[in-house]
Amino acid sequence: MVVKVYGPQCACPKRVIVCLIEKGVDFEVVPIDIFKGENKTPHYLQLQPFGHVPVTQDGDYTLFESRAIMRYYAEKYRSQGTELLGKTLEERGQVEQWLEVEAHEFSPPVYNLVIHIMLSSKLGITADQKLIQESEEKLHKVLDIYEERLSKSKYFAGDFFSLADLSHLPFVQYLMDPLGKEHVIRDRKHLSAWWDDISNRPSWKKVLQHYPPPNLS
Amino acid sequence: MVVKVYGPQCACPKRVIVCLIEKGVDFEVVPIDIFKGENKTPHYLQLQPFGHVPVTQDGDYTLFESRAIMRYYAEKYRSQGTELLGKTLEERGQVEQWLEVEAHEFSPPVYNLVIHIMLSSKLGITADQKLIQESEEKLHKVLDIYEERLSKSKYFAGDFFSLADLSHLPFVQYLMDPLGKEHVIRDRKHLSAWWDDISNRPSWKKVLQHYPPPNLS
Repeated sequence: MVVKVYGPQCACPKRVIVCLIEKGVDFEVVPIDIFKGENKTPHYLQLQPFGHVPVTQDGDYTLFESRAIMRYYAEKYRSQGTELLGKTLEERGQVEQWLEVEAHEFSPPVYNLVIHIMLSSKLGITADQKLIQESEEKLHKVLDIYEERLSKSKYFAGDFFSLADLSHLPFVQYLMDPLGKEHVIRDRKHLSAWWDDISNRPSWKKVLQHYPPPNLS
Repeated sequence: MVVKVYGPQCACPKRVIVCLIEKGVDFEVVPIDIFKGENKTPHYLQLQPFGHVPVTQDGDYTLFESRAIMRYYAEKYRSQGTELLGKTLEERGQVEQWLEVEAHEFSPPVYNLVIHIMLSSKLGITADQKLIQESEEKLHKVLDIYEERLSKSKYFAGDFFSLADLSHLPFVQYLMDPLGKEHVIRDRKHLSAWWDDISNRPSWKKVLQHYPPPNLS
């Protein structure tokens, strides 16, 4: 069964796609143009009641929320492709811990920067300068903690690549390129080496090549 | 080995405590007074670099982030107490999906209400009325989706109680009592029945009895 992934242009579905590539799972994408409101149609809201991307469909099994989808496929195809959950219960605990940190500490300030720097004109909103400043300050504190963590182990959960690293790919990519904040990564030695390592994985290069972000002009 | 849980007065550690009770795991609590800055001491920051609660210590195995901790103990003690992760991979996927919804859709607006209605005077901040209004509007939309979901299955992930339900307990409790927003639950028939069911579990009654929230006066 080929897994359908809705919304490949956006950041969160890219987490799912890179995970499926790492696991060697066949998939096809279903474009959803959020700027045309395709995520708010009655049909789409039947799949994802909040109107967010991604959704996956696998036969008659539907899932949403990118990190839930990643966990499901990383577990379902445990015996093939890259092991993304750690080998032991304790390693899995560390993977889950840093996956939660990505979701609750790292991604919210980057999301604010994406909305208020990258997308404000496309969305027709006034960029909130105070929120931009607060988000940048918050991001620096998080990245200082990341630098400390990555000085002790090669990847977030230990000396193995996992969902905790993979889940950072789309939003660190936004920082590097369209947001022009490469220095926040490059100024931190261990974080910079980690980024070079994970962003050079063939899976992520394939995602960038085949699923570019939407045209914002 | 008795599990140490730091910060039992606060909401997020209560997720962990109710999970440990459901699983029949022995634990002891370590009070952390965040209003006295005990979560920012060098010792505490060694355990949790962001200065948040909870942290658990289990021998020399330390974990933070409440939902990561719950997953770890629900899996480690899978064969005892209440099954909280579902019985199949597909049920687990649904548990993870709704656990992510709790974290990303439900809890952020309730957190804003807690900070700006319940804690603003204690924290010495001016309550942001615009944020309060936006958070209430967002919360109503989320709860409408919850009502629809719970009209189709008794619990979030299906006809079984799971981490997806359990994880809502501390913040729905805040809505009911100190925030005085009982009507947002009671006005929705299925959500109201779900709340009566899960809040009457002996585990949650024990948490409320033994670990009351901090005195805000």
